Amino acid sequence: MELPLLCPLPAVEPTQILLTHGGGGRLMHRLIERVFAPAFASPHGETHHDGALLPPGGAARLAFTTDAYVVRPLFFPGGDIGRLAVCGTVNDLAMCGARPLYLSAAFILEEGLPLQTLEQVVGSMRQAAHEAGVEIVTGDTKVVERGRGDGLYITTAGIGLVEHGLHVAPASIRAGDAVLVSGDLGRHGVAVLAVREGLDLECPIQSDCAPLAEPVRRLLAAGLQVHCLRDLTRGGLAAALVELAEASGLSIAIDGAAVPLREEVRGACEILGLDPLQLACEGRFLCVLPEEETVRALALLGPEAAHIGRVHASTPPQVTLRGPLGAWRIVEMPSGEQLPRIC
Amino acid sequence: MELPLLCPLPAVEPTQILLTHGGGGRLMHRLIERVFAPAFASPHGETHHDGALLPPGGAARLAFTTDAYVVRPLFFPGGDIGRLAVCGTVNDLAMCGARPLYLSAAFILEEGLPLQTLEQVVGSMRQAAHEAGVEIVTGDTKVVERGRGDGLYITTAGIGLVEHGLHVAPASIRAGDAVLVSGDLGRHGVAVLAVREGLDLECPIQSDCAPLAEPVRRLLAAGLQVHCLRDLTRGGLAAALVELAEASGLSIAIDGAAVPLREEVRGACEILGLDPLQLACEGRFLCVLPEEETVRALALLGPEAAHIGRVHASTPPQVTLRGPLGAWRIVEMPSGEQLPRIC
Repeated sequence: MELPLLCPLPAVEPTQILLTHGGGGRLMHRLIERVFAPAFASPHGETHHDGALLPPGGAARLAFTTDAYVVRPLFFPGGDIGRLAVCGTVNDLAMCGARPLYLSAAFILEEGLPLQTLEQVVGSMRQAAHEAGVEIVTGDTKVVERGRGDGLYITTAGIGLVEHGLHVAPASIRAGDAVLVSGDLGRHGVAVLAVREGLDLECPIQSDCAPLAEPVRRLLAAGLQVHCLRDLTRGGLAAALVELAEASGLSIAIDGAAVPLREEVRGACEILGLDPLQLACEGRFLCVLPEEETVRALALLGPEAAHIGRVHASTPPQVTLRGPLGAWRIVEMPSGEQLPRIC
Repeated sequence: MELPLLCPLPAVEPTQILLTHGGGGRLMHRLIERVFAPAFASPHGETHHDGALLPPGGAARLAFTTDAYVVRPLFFPGGDIGRLAVCGTVNDLAMCGARPLYLSAAFILEEGLPLQTLEQVVGSMRQAAHEAGVEIVTGDTKVVERGRGDGLYITTAGIGLVEHGLHVAPASIRAGDAVLVSGDLGRHGVAVLAVREGLDLECPIQSDCAPLAEPVRRLLAAGLQVHCLRDLTRGGLAAALVELAEASGLSIAIDGAAVPLREEVRGACEILGLDPLQLACEGRFLCVLPEEETVRALALLGPEAAHIGRVHASTPPQVTLRGPLGAWRIVEMPSGEQLPRIC
C-alpha cells in the first residue's frame, strides 16, 4: 500500500529550494527546523502548530495590518526584502499609533532559490525584528515552479496595541495643523533603482529602510496630540499628502524648500527623470499635529526632521507646493508607476 | 517640475491588471475602491489607512496565524483560491481552539490578470468570510510582471480569541485518547488534481473546502475536554498523525477500515497512484480527546465524523495503520510532494 511518490526525497541535502520543500512533508519540516525556527524562536510561536497564542491585550485596542513584499532586486544598499518586510509592517502599525508586538511571515519561494539566499533574508528579518522590538510568532511556506515567482515574496502581518486615547487618523486632522516629515526623502526609491539600472554612483545611496516604532512611541509618550501619521512608501510624499487631503477634506500647503532631500538623491532624480516627491521611502513618515506642538515634536524626532507645511481649509481640498522661485503648483496623486516593485 | 511618468495612466478603463495598479497611485486607489472596498466593507477597516483598529480582546488570549495560497488552478469544483484563503486561515485559528474574528488579505497579482477573475475571487472571499463569521479588515495589493507570478497569490492572516482555559495542543494529548476525524478525506486533493490533469470524471468530485469554526465551537461550548485539533491540509492525514505523534511523544494506532473515504475518491486514487492518507483536505480535522467523550463528540460533529484510532504509549512514538486484511503497517511522514500547489 506504500505508493510511489511523484517527487522522491533527494538523497543529498539540497542547496536550492525544490517543489518538495512546499509539500508539507519531511523536507518542509527540515526547512522549518533549520531555517525558520532558529531565527524566529519565540515563547509564543508554539512549534508544530499552525498558529501562535498571544497574551491578552487587556483594555487596549488592537491594530492589525498586512503587506506583501515583492521588491526587486532582493538585496539593495541598506537592506533587503527581509528587512523591508519587517520594517514595512512594523511601520504600518506605528502609523496607526500602535505599539507593534507580533508579526507573522508567509513565504512564497520559487523553485531553484538558493537556500543561502533564504537564510540571508531570514537573518535580516530576525535582525530587523530585534531592532523594532517585535516577535515573529507564526509563519507559512509555499513553493511555486520556476517562472511562477521571482526568487521569493514575503507577506507579513502585524498586531500592535493602541495604549492611548488618541484617534490617530486622517479624520482627526484640523485646519492650522503643522505637517512634519521625520527625515530626508526618497533614498529607498533611488537605492533600489540604482541597483536595478546598474548605475555606478560614486558612493551608493543607502535605502532609508528602518522601523518607525520608536520615534512614534516618543511622540505619544510625550503626550503630544498627534492627529495623523503616515509613512511615505509607494507614491512617496505626493501620494501621502493627496490621500490625507482627500480623506480629511482639508488642503495642505507645502514649502518645497523645507522638504529635506540629500544632494545625491536630488542629483539622481535629475539624471533619471524622477519626481523626488513621488519617490518611495521605507523609514520616513509624516506627522500632522497642532501647530503649537511643532517645536517639541521636532526635538523628539531628531535633527533630520523638518516642518514642511500647514493644513488649511479651502475647497476643493488640494495639496499645493511652493517651488524654488516662490510659485505655487498643485501636487497631484501619482497617476502611474514611477518604479514597479519598489517594496 | 511635472516630470514624465514611466507608465502613464491608460485612457480607457483597463480590464486587466497593469503594473500601474501596483504603484500606490490613482489606478491602485481605483482598484481598491471598485473591487476590494465594496467586498470587504467593515466597521473596523478604516478606509484610507493601512491598518485596522480592533476592539480590545479583554482577558482572552489571542490566536494569530497566516498562510500563503498558491493553488493551481485558481478555480476548482467546490471552491477557488479566494474561498481557500479564507477557510484555510479560519481553520488554523479554529485548530488553536480560538474563535476566528478578523482576517487580513494581501494580494500578489500578475500583470495581465483579468479584472473579472480578481472580482470573482474577491466575491468568493466575501462569501466564505460571511459563512465563517469573520471580517476581512485590512489588506494590500502588489503587482508583478508577467511571468513572475501565476495569476494571483493571496496571503491571509487571522486573529481569533481563545475564550476557554483548555490548552489545545499536541502537548495535551494523553495515552488512551480517542482520535476522531470530522468527515470523509481527500476530496480537495482529488478535485484539484482532476481539473489539473483534465480527468473526465462522470460526476466531478467537489473540494471539501469549508470553514471549521462552527464544529469546533460546538465541541468547546459543550465543555468537552478537547486535547488537540489539527486540520488535514498538505500531507493529509498521514502528515498530521505523524506530526502529532512526534510532538506528543505518543503513538497512534489507526483502523484503516474506519477512515471515511468516498468511493469516487478511492477510485481516483487507484487510477492516479495516490495514497489517500496523504491527500489534502481543506475542511476536515482531527480531534483528539478523552475516550469517554467520543460519543458526545461524534454526535456534535455530525454523521460524517468517525472514530478512527487511539493514542497509546510506546517507544519510539509512531503511527500504525491496520489494513483491510488486518495487518499493521507504519504510517510515514510523506517524504516528497504528492501534489504541488494544492493550497
